[in-house]
Amino acid sequence: MEALEKKILMEGRVLTGNILKVDSFLNHQMDPLLMQAIGQEFARRFAGDSVTKILTLEASGIAPALFTGLALGVPVLFAKKTAAGNMDPLTYSADVYSYTRNRTYTIRVSRNYLSAADRILIIDDFLARGQAVLGMAELIGQAGASLAGAGIVIEKGFQDGGAIVRQKGIRVESLAIIKDMTNGQITFS
Amino acid sequence: MEALEKKILMEGRVLTGNILKVDSFLNHQMDPLLMQAIGQEFARRFAGDSVTKILTLEASGIAPALFTGLALGVPVLFAKKTAAGNMDPLTYSADVYSYTRNRTYTIRVSRNYLSAADRILIIDDFLARGQAVLGMAELIGQAGASLAGAGIVIEKGFQDGGAIVRQKGIRVESLAIIKDMTNGQITFS
Repeated sequence: MEALEKKILMEGRVLTGNILKVDSFLNHQMDPLLMQAIGQEFARRFAGDSVTKILTLEASGIAPALFTGLALGVPVLFAKKTAAGNMDPLTYSADVYSYTRNRTYTIRVSRNYLSAADRILIIDDFLARGQAVLGMAELIGQAGASLAGAGIVIEKGFQDGGAIVRQKGIRVESLAIIKDMTNGQITFS
Repeated sequence: MEALEKKILMEGRVLTGNILKVDSFLNHQMDPLLMQAIGQEFARRFAGDSVTKILTLEASGIAPALFTGLALGVPVLFAKKTAAGNMDPLTYSADVYSYTRNRTYTIRVSRNYLSAADRILIIDDFLARGQAVLGMAELIGQAGASLAGAGIVIEKGFQDGGAIVRQKGIRVESLAIIKDMTNGQITFS
């Protein structure tokens, strides 16, 4: 997606530890027009795939997921990373290891909002090691729902997450795939 | 806002401890069309107020904030509740006490994204005791930015937050104000 790649080249900053900082438009400050375009592009790629609901992970996945849900005309559910005091006691949950933060956290969704009748599209901001997508796929499996695929805003193509997720038979649609960002020079696949 | 009040009456559940559960459309599962209508309504109420940026709090504020930003044509910034490993070290921060969770957490935004030139509109999902809005107002004050006001999806009019915030001279626009929800019967102001 050209507008996204341009934005990454203009505003992305490469930090040590293979971190790509895109907090000016994606995961701290958000550019609503770009998020809308991203949602429309995911909807285009998964049109005709009978998606009934979007699943994402708080907080950075919410913006692209919301516009995808708007474009597809389906609700958007976000998995929570902390056990909120007033969350339903009956949840589907999975453990996700974060390489960025070097810790495992439990993601949860209420059982009220995932069912065997659902066909789910996962949306997330980044795909690097694949753990978040696999965790969300596990929630979907627990509910007996089917998985249409995963729409990713930025895939780090030089890490193994994309291969791991695709090897499990999950369709992955990434809007920008970074081939390399050694020495701060970003190139796309 | 009639569509919102109807949705609250149809899907909201009143739990003990003055908790109104609206997780079917606002803060777990989200209804993108309703969120869009809410964003357009906030934009209408603050049109002509020279807003340069929206500030909200992860995660439940993001949906209404994003559509407000889209409608006003300005970026949306969300304050973080946890210190992310890759966040800018230079932040504005404030402590916020949550009555729902009975603990204090620190909210933070990068100094890169709030400046003295900004005129900020706060958006949040709930106003109950006012602590989150006051915390965000403090971040705005630290940056030397000006505050256009606060747009609230649901105000609990029977709690003191609305009065506290308005007494500080902050303009508050709430789309639904709950007058009472004793015995699970919700009435609006």
